[in-house]
Amino acid sequence: MPAPDEFELIRELFAPLATHPGALDLRDDAALLDCPRGRQLVLTTDAIVAGVHFLADDPSDLVARKLVRVNLSDLAAMGAEPVGMLLDACFARDAGLDWMRLFAQGLAADCAQYGVPLLGGDTVATPGPATFAVTAIGSVEAGKALRRSGARAGDRIWVSGTIGDGAFGLLAARGQGGTLTPSEIEYLARRYRLPEPRVALGRALAGVATAAMDVSDGLVGDLAHVCEASHVGAVVVADQTPLSDAGRAAIAAGLGEGLATALTGGDDYELLFTAPVAADAAIDAISRDLGLRLTAIGTIIAGPGVRVDGPGDRPMALPAQGYRHFGP
Amino acid sequence: MPAPDEFELIRELFAPLATHPGALDLRDDAALLDCPRGRQLVLTTDAIVAGVHFLADDPSDLVARKLVRVNLSDLAAMGAEPVGMLLDACFARDAGLDWMRLFAQGLAADCAQYGVPLLGGDTVATPGPATFAVTAIGSVEAGKALRRSGARAGDRIWVSGTIGDGAFGLLAARGQGGTLTPSEIEYLARRYRLPEPRVALGRALAGVATAAMDVSDGLVGDLAHVCEASHVGAVVVADQTPLSDAGRAAIAAGLGEGLATALTGGDDYELLFTAPVAADAAIDAISRDLGLRLTAIGTIIAGPGVRVDGPGDRPMALPAQGYRHFGP
Repeated sequence: MPAPDEFELIRELFAPLATHPGALDLRDDAALLDCPRGRQLVLTTDAIVAGVHFLADDPSDLVARKLVRVNLSDLAAMGAEPVGMLLDACFARDAGLDWMRLFAQGLAADCAQYGVPLLGGDTVATPGPATFAVTAIGSVEAGKALRRSGARAGDRIWVSGTIGDGAFGLLAARGQGGTLTPSEIEYLARRYRLPEPRVALGRALAGVATAAMDVSDGLVGDLAHVCEASHVGAVVVADQTPLSDAGRAAIAAGLGEGLATALTGGDDYELLFTAPVAADAAIDAISRDLGLRLTAIGTIIAGPGVRVDGPGDRPMALPAQGYRHFGP
Repeated sequence: MPAPDEFELIRELFAPLATHPGALDLRDDAALLDCPRGRQLVLTTDAIVAGVHFLADDPSDLVARKLVRVNLSDLAAMGAEPVGMLLDACFARDAGLDWMRLFAQGLAADCAQYGVPLLGGDTVATPGPATFAVTAIGSVEAGKALRRSGARAGDRIWVSGTIGDGAFGLLAARGQGGTLTPSEIEYLARRYRLPEPRVALGRALAGVATAAMDVSDGLVGDLAHVCEASHVGAVVVADQTPLSDAGRAAIAAGLGEGLATALTGGDDYELLFTAPVAADAAIDAISRDLGLRLTAIGTIIAGPGVRVDGPGDRPMALPAQGYRHFGP
């Protein structure tokens, strides 16, 4: 039986996800999107490569879902509501139909879960590692988008959920879970493979937070980006970092560099945001409404740079921050 | 000297192209785009892989420009005006800074030429072949987008420019130019490497043409897509196909399968469109205004399928149509 060509693949795998009328059933040269009045569109894209951003033996449904989620996390960081997405799928030439079908199933699951239909895309075969890119489109009330540049001295620094699970989860998924229990390993690996984009939180924070971004490259490095964009500095109190039980166990078991790994590792996809002290009550209310832990971990200051106060209020020495694609 | 990290690369290579205020200087999680009243947004994406869509030793500025242009060609096929684009750049890990800089120069040239600023993107290193994806965003007057589905029996079938240069150009670029002269080889290779998206034509055809698409996979195969979407058939008169002098020389020199290659090869990025006979004068006027050859090559009929009448009005036998990514 000959392999299907890309048109057949698109019809079988992707057309069912093109539920938006503007997707034109994936049969035209481009998608058409109405412009909602009084709103702005929010556009972001992320690419992932096998062996770099995901593990070659990761189940392909989880690969697809993580790709959707990291893009939705960027929309969340801007306070946007998801509208749809486009997918460039460069499948490995020898991937096989089962791998591609499972990929599409994962995509379908998250399209449905987050209400983000497929608007278009391109499907090709690559002789190299599988490579995928998603462009996600959202919308936000005009002028209400969250930005990185609005943090002011005196603002509190907040994070959602728990920090470090992504970095420890990567170690766990690689079989470097040390003395962790199987359920701790499973919890952390799942947090790495299937992060939860904080879409509802982002929308709730529009108009409340002064600045926001998602924690993808590591809390401290990402906070440095907020500080740079806002021309401010930050002091973080390390032991206020919210940790999961499994994250705490990973630190106790000596995974990576312990708390420093939690603070500088990536892949958390929680929201990092700043807000004036006067917004405490509003933020508590959002936390209760969403059933989502929101933790103040420090304060924005006038001076430049990010200082992390560790045990005994001494500044912590931290390893190099974030993954360097082109670094030495 | 250590290699730059992706943040430094983005600042040096891509931030200068982010001239749209909504690009937020590429410093935020996403771009912000105002929604123009009375218009719809048009969204398309295409991915290219080294060794599949471009030749490994192609100059990287031309690689970038072709990528931009194939996306603009999709916007043109919908009758849209370009607004901006997002770029996923998966540079080969060992590409070197010069290759990346030349790529960015090519990108900059076409951003300027077509007025299509960079709105955002992602820059990563891949251990495999260089892989790039562009998502292009355009806008069109609401309800006026060109579609593939509007062709009606009796409509004329038109193409812009000349057909076959892309397919012969690929052969020429691969050193399979046979007895062609150096200037013919250069002309055809350039048409393959640097197609001209028919953006102004697409905009002019909105409201005039009944259906349109761009010729990327081959004239006959692409026409079959229009027919399928419009539930009609087509008769093409082979010797009315507009050919360049170099294309005619390529057929005379026996490149590929001659005229059949022109009719079924890809990479022309001309517009294929249909219009009622009553639109002839309007189409002639557009041709004069733009200084662009527009040629009627056949007629839409009620029945299904595409028939190509060759010499002596006998139906031509044509080779398999278009590039099959996953085919046998």
